[in-house]
Amino acid sequence: MIRVSVLYPGGEGKTFDHGYYVHKHMALVKEWLGSLGLRRLEVDKGVAGGAPGAPAPYTAVGHLYLDSVADFQSAMKPHGKELFADVPNFTNIQPQVQISEIIA
Amino acid sequence: MIRVSVLYPGGEGKTFDHGYYVHKHMALVKEWLGSLGLRRLEVDKGVAGGAPGAPAPYTAVGHLYLDSVADFQSAMKPHGKELFADVPNFTNIQPQVQISEIIA
Repeated sequence: MIRVSVLYPGGEGKTFDHGYYVHKHMALVKEWLGSLGLRRLEVDKGVAGGAPGAPAPYTAVGHLYLDSVADFQSAMKPHGKELFADVPNFTNIQPQVQISEIIA
Repeated sequence: MIRVSVLYPGGEGKTFDHGYYVHKHMALVKEWLGSLGLRRLEVDKGVAGGAPGAPAPYTAVGHLYLDSVADFQSAMKPHGKELFADVPNFTNIQPQVQISEIIA
């Protein structure tokens, strides 16, 4: 199983609409990738960092679970551009993408 | 439910022993936090970034799941120092910690 984490770093002047992200953007992800290998998805809202009083490094993180990197790549081929085009509708943050194998 | 993600950024000169991390470090986490509110844990091994050919931003990520931030803080009080003291046994990377509420 792989996890694709889309990480939105926080910082001064950064904005993020969690409602739009969960209810509209992730609904699109589910609709478009649900029949293309997406097993499930999760949404994180950052609440804190590790040190006492430290802010969360990431304001939000979306996690997509699929069987393989190949599945993710073929699911993104028809929909990736449109999904990234929706990002400015909920944030001015440039997301980072991490693709990982879940090994334990 | 909260997710505590411990993120190990990759980069030149960075080393990480995934075997030690999974079989020893995470075994300690389970042993010490299992009776203190830890619901489950997962380990990610970074395989790629978002752009074609891009490396994973993080070499490894450990995810701990608990009911609340308060549970995490009270679980870490007796064991946090020892857990962080084990980090140099498997990596020269300074980890980042992200505490998130799983909202969807």
